[in-house]
Amino acid sequence: MSLSRTRAAKVIERCRELSRITDVPGETTRLFLSRATHAAHALLLSWMRQAGLETRTDDIGNVRGVRRSNASDTSTLLLFSHIDTVPNAGAFDGPLGVLLGLAVMEELGATELPFNIELIAFSEEEGIRFSFPFLSSTAAAGGITHDHLRRKDAAGISVEQALRDFGLNPERLGESCAFSPATFAALEVHIEQGPVLEAEDLSLAVVQSIIGQSRLRLRFEGQANHAGTTPMPLRRDALTAAAQWIVDVERFALDHKQLVATVGRIEALPGAVNVIPGTVELTLDVRHPSDDSRHAAVGVLLTKAQRAAELRGVQVKATVASEQKSVAMDATLAASLAAAAERAGYPGRTMFSGAGHDAMILAPHVPTIMLFVRSPGSLSHHPDEAAREENVEAAIAVVIEWVLGLRQGANDS
Amino acid sequence: MSLSRTRAAKVIERCRELSRITDVPGETTRLFLSRATHAAHALLLSWMRQAGLETRTDDIGNVRGVRRSNASDTSTLLLFSHIDTVPNAGAFDGPLGVLLGLAVMEELGATELPFNIELIAFSEEEGIRFSFPFLSSTAAAGGITHDHLRRKDAAGISVEQALRDFGLNPERLGESCAFSPATFAALEVHIEQGPVLEAEDLSLAVVQSIIGQSRLRLRFEGQANHAGTTPMPLRRDALTAAAQWIVDVERFALDHKQLVATVGRIEALPGAVNVIPGTVELTLDVRHPSDDSRHAAVGVLLTKAQRAAELRGVQVKATVASEQKSVAMDATLAASLAAAAERAGYPGRTMFSGAGHDAMILAPHVPTIMLFVRSPGSLSHHPDEAAREENVEAAIAVVIEWVLGLRQGANDS
Repeated sequence: MSLSRTRAAKVIERCRELSRITDVPGETTRLFLSRATHAAHALLLSWMRQAGLETRTDDIGNVRGVRRSNASDTSTLLLFSHIDTVPNAGAFDGPLGVLLGLAVMEELGATELPFNIELIAFSEEEGIRFSFPFLSSTAAAGGITHDHLRRKDAAGISVEQALRDFGLNPERLGESCAFSPATFAALEVHIEQGPVLEAEDLSLAVVQSIIGQSRLRLRFEGQANHAGTTPMPLRRDALTAAAQWIVDVERFALDHKQLVATVGRIEALPGAVNVIPGTVELTLDVRHPSDDSRHAAVGVLLTKAQRAAELRGVQVKATVASEQKSVAMDATLAASLAAAAERAGYPGRTMFSGAGHDAMILAPHVPTIMLFVRSPGSLSHHPDEAAREENVEAAIAVVIEWVLGLRQGANDS
Repeated sequence: MSLSRTRAAKVIERCRELSRITDVPGETTRLFLSRATHAAHALLLSWMRQAGLETRTDDIGNVRGVRRSNASDTSTLLLFSHIDTVPNAGAFDGPLGVLLGLAVMEELGATELPFNIELIAFSEEEGIRFSFPFLSSTAAAGGITHDHLRRKDAAGISVEQALRDFGLNPERLGESCAFSPATFAALEVHIEQGPVLEAEDLSLAVVQSIIGQSRLRLRFEGQANHAGTTPMPLRRDALTAAAQWIVDVERFALDHKQLVATVGRIEALPGAVNVIPGTVELTLDVRHPSDDSRHAAVGVLLTKAQRAAELRGVQVKATVASEQKSVAMDATLAASLAAAAERAGYPGRTMFSGAGHDAMILAPHVPTIMLFVRSPGSLSHHPDEAAREENVEAAIAVVIEWVLGLRQGANDS
């Protein structure tokens, strides 16, 4: 147990060391292809080399290390996550999966496996710099287009220029970034960024699906009027209509398991203490593991918006701002990872991911699975984001158990 | 009838002529002691003189005209309203009462009355320039203090300095502004600024009370969290708590006649489409003719806020931003004005004013009454604010009927 704690502690310590490499002193902010990213790459590459990996940086800026098998030239297991961050981030969203992968490779030591293991630290998942997430896993999946390369950051620098400035070659993106076609399985370990595991007092869970989401904008249009002179029955209050609907949304989502629905932004105009709001604009975010259920929920919720509005002589208009389909993880890998968890002494809990991840981008191209590690306080995208040693140790143990179990599967394929 | 229409049309036309005198070209904006106010005063004084009134401007900038009685040196009926405006105002909020008073004097012609009639056009009711309303009626009531005089506008000019710059003498405020101590009744005619008369298809109503109001700020404090990864039952959503309460407020006010309650401002933080709101701040405006009922309502509503918050693991804090007591108009004058309306052929409807008026400031000092004239579309504080000829004619007829009926009352006093 004391040995185990040591390898988990080392992973946490490395995440923290990486978090001190930042573009903004005093916080952790490490954007795609930034100055700090050079230093982060150098540190990560040094750790990979110490672990005996063959290292390289591909032309989208992903740091990669391969553990060669004597038995196979090509058959490859991929472990991955990302090392870019949101502004003022924590230490674990992304780096935990990368450094846990490295710890697994170190732990495997000289153990002979019938497949290679490649570790990829993706360079752009959060999508802060170019307002576009998953750029580097999209490159690994061969999906980068000229539109992607022409995107510009706040300073007017294009993705293509940023790649060149970093010393990379955008012309070679295709060949240098693609993951090996003989990759038979891909695993992303990531902090949960939610409260489920903590609520159930579990260390980890297998992610069976990254759930789809719909984002809508709604505008309730009533009649602004004097708060003192307008009797209640004569009002056309856009805010009471919107409020009724927000409560309806909450009730409906509570009544439908696995559905989450959130009104995150609201603005009431004209916004004076003594004026009845004439206009309310708000956003709705709806997620469900089943796309059909999600679409059905959106339909029901829009009907409820109409009813809440009509009751008050208010009009409501809704527009869909974005739609993202649910992405299933590989069912066979989910079963084998849950079984490995059980063998290692942890419940083989499966769950859905409510947040998007690089795994979503790789899943259509290679059998992909995710493992969530408990987030203390469910804090994420926050400097106080944390990871507990015992939970990290559980994840290391489960991944090793799983990798060792894959020997048979890899031989079969 | 055609003659009647003519005198009402003249009042409306004069209101519109006054509305073209503005500090901001293209709209009607006439703030206290502004440049445009000089021109408005000159025009109003010329109309008063044409009507045979003794005119003067007092030292807070109120324009005053007296119709002398042969029978009385002092006994005085006061007619009043204001001629300052909000920014981008309509033509009738204030000026209608002043010019309708003038029309009444013109209509009375040589009719001998046993009392003087004084018409006051108050200079500062809206309170825009110095963020303080009712300054000029406060002066007439003898209530101006050094604190009032030291208040500064956005340009750093004090009330005292503004008075001097306008050619007035702040040292003489007391004597020059006070209304005559022999004033036995005061009437303010004003547009309703609400939908009640239009909903009941009435031209006018007697205001029996200016209702009190409480303004509160509430802060709901929950826990901001990821909209995708936080299951509904584990949320502490400040916005759903606030929304539940907004609906409770609406329901409670609908269930309690004469109560109005309004949430006019709301802000949800952090305010991102994919983040559960952790904090919501909003305002509550509560009004009721009875101060006791208003206080009781505020108490019940705060309890409801606690309940809506507790159900969601959210905290709520409320602070009272301001309190204003209800001000009763004179009951005898209300009865005589309603009776005059009936005699003139209009229902003697009485109602409450949900908005504040100069009448509220005078009422503790002199028997005061208000007459509301229907607001088409209930629009006010808006360029499209309107007054209909038939409603204005009704008000002129009722006021004349009332003034003639006061002969007896004035003789008695």
